[in-house]
Amino acid sequence: MDEIAADPSHPRYASLLMRHRLEVAQAKGMLADSAMIAHGRGEAFDYLLGEVTTPSAHKATRHALACMMEGRRTVLSVNGNVAALATDEMLTLADALDCPLEVNIFYRTPERMEAILGHISERNEALGLDVTVLGHAPNASIPGLKGPRASCHKEGILDSDVILVPLEDGDRCRALLEMGKTVIVIDLNPLSRSAQEGTITIVDELSRALTNMVGLLKRGENVVVDSKYNNEATLKAALEWMLNSLKQV
Amino acid sequence: MDEIAADPSHPRYASLLMRHRLEVAQAKGMLADSAMIAHGRGEAFDYLLGEVTTPSAHKATRHALACMMEGRRTVLSVNGNVAALATDEMLTLADALDCPLEVNIFYRTPERMEAILGHISERNEALGLDVTVLGHAPNASIPGLKGPRASCHKEGILDSDVILVPLEDGDRCRALLEMGKTVIVIDLNPLSRSAQEGTITIVDELSRALTNMVGLLKRGENVVVDSKYNNEATLKAALEWMLNSLKQV
Repeated sequence: MDEIAADPSHPRYASLLMRHRLEVAQAKGMLADSAMIAHGRGEAFDYLLGEVTTPSAHKATRHALACMMEGRRTVLSVNGNVAALATDEMLTLADALDCPLEVNIFYRTPERMEAILGHISERNEALGLDVTVLGHAPNASIPGLKGPRASCHKEGILDSDVILVPLEDGDRCRALLEMGKTVIVIDLNPLSRSAQEGTITIVDELSRALTNMVGLLKRGENVVVDSKYNNEATLKAALEWMLNSLKQV
Repeated sequence: MDEIAADPSHPRYASLLMRHRLEVAQAKGMLADSAMIAHGRGEAFDYLLGEVTTPSAHKATRHALACMMEGRRTVLSVNGNVAALATDEMLTLADALDCPLEVNIFYRTPERMEAILGHISERNEALGLDVTVLGHAPNASIPGLKGPRASCHKEGILDSDVILVPLEDGDRCRALLEMGKTVIVIDLNPLSRSAQEGTITIVDELSRALTNMVGLLKRGENVVVDSKYNNEATLKAALEWMLNSLKQV
């Protein structure tokens, strides 16, 4: 899938790979107009993180994974950028957790939905997985949101108790929180509304965070809910990490 | 030119306007593939600046303007993103300084050059200006660069003594410095190679910085070369401003 010119030993390989995935997704019609700009913003914050998973992000990742494992009805939400950047990782995680993916995009058009669902279905088959992928036939609405961006599946997002929303819009994140769900955010900007308001916020690059989760599961590590978990402390630690990286220049 | 849906009173108006300009430029074929991502990175750093011109950026702006006024052969360099975001401002500045613009792009293709030159020529006429615009017939090369990205005009960039290079690539910035020119960089990322190596670095959003320069000229302010100007101090002040904004969260 990832045929790019750069060598994996190139210091910018991971970053170039993500750009390549976005270009492929762009060509497939999966992305919103603002997708590339949003990605660039993320790149700047990842630069400040030093492009590594920080200790506090590792801690948030473990806790988030434990919550997803304990969820009665865990759902992984996928938008255009998530599908572009990490479809394989999202499918692998959903398979390991035995939970569905639901495609849920902010700027919803039939063409984009079809492009994203087609891409995920292709990868589901290519990986030899059989993950349930929702989004094709929404039959419910997220209360508090207007228009097509409220659409969801009853058996998916609506009835979920734990939901992973990587790179999520602030309004939709808040609407999900108001439904009483455990909302797990993955966002490189610790100052974004989603990051600030999420139940658990993983301040990390998407594919790194998902690869960490899959690794924890594959190695059979003992991942348990952290009863003392404090998301404010997570956000503060991410900011301090960035502050220190700016100071060291 | 700027027909966008948002009201100028909208708190995100300036940012939405810049995105709109990029979309128009994208449709005209003016942009490189990486243009939107680069813009998003800038947005993140502007967010850390608080989307204002800081006192140190004002100081760098005045000094840079004075150097451009004193230059024997000042040239303003324009790439795809600069043409997209601030063609009018660049033309107005070139007119006030009575110097040429030169289109000089990193990923040079005849189609992109034509699209950018066409856009600038349209705006030159619409503004009732008669600025000399180079780039259409390069007859020289910047030493130290390979391939089409080295192309330039002898009567423009090659023989210039002072050059404004907003949003410039690090390699090209260095090649211009090695020619002994005064290189004025406008870049929101104080850590970028161009920002770090430029003779004078204005850490500010492009259209804000240019509007500030044009304003200084229009108001006839006394703008003089600052013999004690220290670019390291400018970069340090920009970083500290960002640090403080992160701290205040």
